[in-house]
Amino acid sequence: MIILGLDPGLGTTGWGVISAEGNRLSHIANGQLKTDASEELPKRLAHLATMIEAVIADHAPRSAAVEEIFLNKNPQSTLKLSQARGVALMIAARAGLDVGEYAARLVKKAVVGTGSAEKAQVHAMVQRLLPGAKIAGPDSADALAVAITHAHHLASARRAPGGPTPGSEPH
Amino acid sequence: MIILGLDPGLGTTGWGVISAEGNRLSHIANGQLKTDASEELPKRLAHLATMIEAVIADHAPRSAAVEEIFLNKNPQSTLKLSQARGVALMIAARAGLDVGEYAARLVKKAVVGTGSAEKAQVHAMVQRLLPGAKIAGPDSADALAVAITHAHHLASARRAPGGPTPGSEPH
Repeated sequence: MIILGLDPGLGTTGWGVISAEGNRLSHIANGQLKTDASEELPKRLAHLATMIEAVIADHAPRSAAVEEIFLNKNPQSTLKLSQARGVALMIAARAGLDVGEYAARLVKKAVVGTGSAEKAQVHAMVQRLLPGAKIAGPDSADALAVAITHAHHLASARRAPGGPTPGSEPH
Repeated sequence: MIILGLDPGLGTTGWGVISAEGNRLSHIANGQLKTDASEELPKRLAHLATMIEAVIADHAPRSAAVEEIFLNKNPQSTLKLSQARGVALMIAARAGLDVGEYAARLVKKAVVGTGSAEKAQVHAMVQRLLPGAKIAGPDSADALAVAITHAHHLASARRAPGGPTPGSEPH
């Protein structure tokens, strides 16, 4: 199954596409989508939507995964981030993808093995789990990490009958 | 000019369409768009996008107006609201509309005359400024209020050469 991970942001949105066959993961592509800070917010969001649609058209993922949002120390950035996130979720759903949402702790646990892992550890593990991947930047690494989390979740759902169904939101 | 006011929300998005010719305002239509709380967030946002597109297709506004967002007492609702708001701004921009954003204080001042007006006063003034309008609910009244604010702003921009251009964001 082709999985698209997204790390949405108004300025930079990371994306990563992986293939998951059982427990075998492989890297397909990743990148970072940037909007122009000198443009007005509605235009930036429209531009972001078009770029995400292009990624989906290029790689035809069946499923998408995004980190859950939480309120950080800077409420203004959270508001910008969540407007971009709304656009990303909407575009994925409209393209017919199942969208999984995962808490940051769960992503760290899935990738590194502990929910309190540092960002650098997560990135190093993403690189190890997807050998050969040229990771475009920190936002791409985060996007690949949530895609890997989604792959693990789907694989364990298949192993456990009666467990969560693919595309459901684990909490 | 036909102006679309939007009061975005994940559960309920108010909308109101008015016509503004110089200082003459008239009501065209208003309503409330609801999404199903039992659906997953990405699907709700996609549904909201489709409903806003239908309103734009029905009424062909040239310009849209939305209240600025601020962090209220409940961060979780603000996060939901801002994801819905991102979708609304994006759909309006993609439809080629200029989008004005107005602080809540500015909306109250434009409609009632004072930035500290109560919600009920705003709604009563909206009803008075748009005689004959059957207002679908509080979110529609808010959407009409921001549309009226936008109309005032565009009219004063026309009166003042060198003033703000239509569609710009006043702060």
